[in-house]
Amino acid sequence: MTTNTVTGGHFITFEGIDGSGKSTQARMLADHLIAEGHEVVLTREPGGSKGAEEIRALVLEGDPDRWSAETEILLFTAARRDHLERTILPALAAGKIVICDRFADSTRMYQGLSRGDLRNVVDQLHDLMIGREPDLTILIDMDPAEGLSRAKSRQTAEERFEDFGQALQDQMRSGFLALSREYADRFRVLNGAGTPEEVATRVMEALAEHLS
Amino acid sequence: MTTNTVTGGHFITFEGIDGSGKSTQARMLADHLIAEGHEVVLTREPGGSKGAEEIRALVLEGDPDRWSAETEILLFTAARRDHLERTILPALAAGKIVICDRFADSTRMYQGLSRGDLRNVVDQLHDLMIGREPDLTILIDMDPAEGLSRAKSRQTAEERFEDFGQALQDQMRSGFLALSREYADRFRVLNGAGTPEEVATRVMEALAEHLS
Repeated sequence: MTTNTVTGGHFITFEGIDGSGKSTQARMLADHLIAEGHEVVLTREPGGSKGAEEIRALVLEGDPDRWSAETEILLFTAARRDHLERTILPALAAGKIVICDRFADSTRMYQGLSRGDLRNVVDQLHDLMIGREPDLTILIDMDPAEGLSRAKSRQTAEERFEDFGQALQDQMRSGFLALSREYADRFRVLNGAGTPEEVATRVMEALAEHLS
Repeated sequence: MTTNTVTGGHFITFEGIDGSGKSTQARMLADHLIAEGHEVVLTREPGGSKGAEEIRALVLEGDPDRWSAETEILLFTAARRDHLERTILPALAAGKIVICDRFADSTRMYQGLSRGDLRNVVDQLHDLMIGREPDLTILIDMDPAEGLSRAKSRQTAEERFEDFGQALQDQMRSGFLALSREYADRFRVLNGAGTPEEVATRVMEALAEHLS
């Protein structure tokens, strides 16, 4: 399948539970589009710009309790604003395709798990300081047990974000699926089972469908 | 004059242009109240708690242009939230008097100078994430030329915040005076001319008047 119908300026995000393969799929889609001659910026959150990475480090390092949920939301919004201004918007303005591994939906989902009462605050901050939603959000849906098993087989430094058990994986999946219904216009939910190549084919199909 | 009528739980802020003596007056008031047997927490912004100091360092270090006005507002709001949660509110809850050298009014004033179009964003962020206003704000009013001359005679590390010329000193003074009218209920504007002891007497009088 070709995705030559992709015009620049598209903002595509990947979301999914730990071990869903979202980062792999983001990279594979970027490689595919680059091979087709598109200009692509592959980025990720939290982080994605120099300033945002510094804020990310400030949030993630040290005692996990050293920031309240409210302060953490503000810091992540500051990081997202920097990422948006310095990386995402300039690339979109230059007609490039921006592929981002996690974006505001991850914040919404995690907030729903830990402090659901702050969802309204998260949304108001987003509306006030970020504003931009992706054009297309690909949710790689995955059996939570399989995702957990895959995630545990990796040794990453992302323990703060990824060290969750089965019950939390279940809640994360439910949270993402709820968001896919809330933002049905831009979400495409894909089955994450199978080889990376099999899932990548589903991603291309979803992209083609989105563009058609 | 005694200020034995001060009950705990009061939140008092000092504002003023560079060289107005606000930091000296904040310290002198704290010393006076402590000598009278009150429990006092003397703090300052930006900073005032461990986390807020780290955010402050992130904002102030490096290239001044590395953060946009919007990202900087978010970072300062995050620092203020941490300062409020970790330092100010616990002290107020314990019945202490909190004296803070600069608070949200400084943000409002500086924002008015540099990006007045963002004042509404500053206010919305404040309402959403901070909420608390001081019970009493003492504005040490000062001839801008005299303030500048005093400020220049000091050698502080606060250059990022304090390195302004005469025109900016004029604008800062106007900005603070405008805020004192906007929040007339809690503002007391004092003449900053004279010795520190003379000004301190005016501060005690203003406090007594506020409490009566």
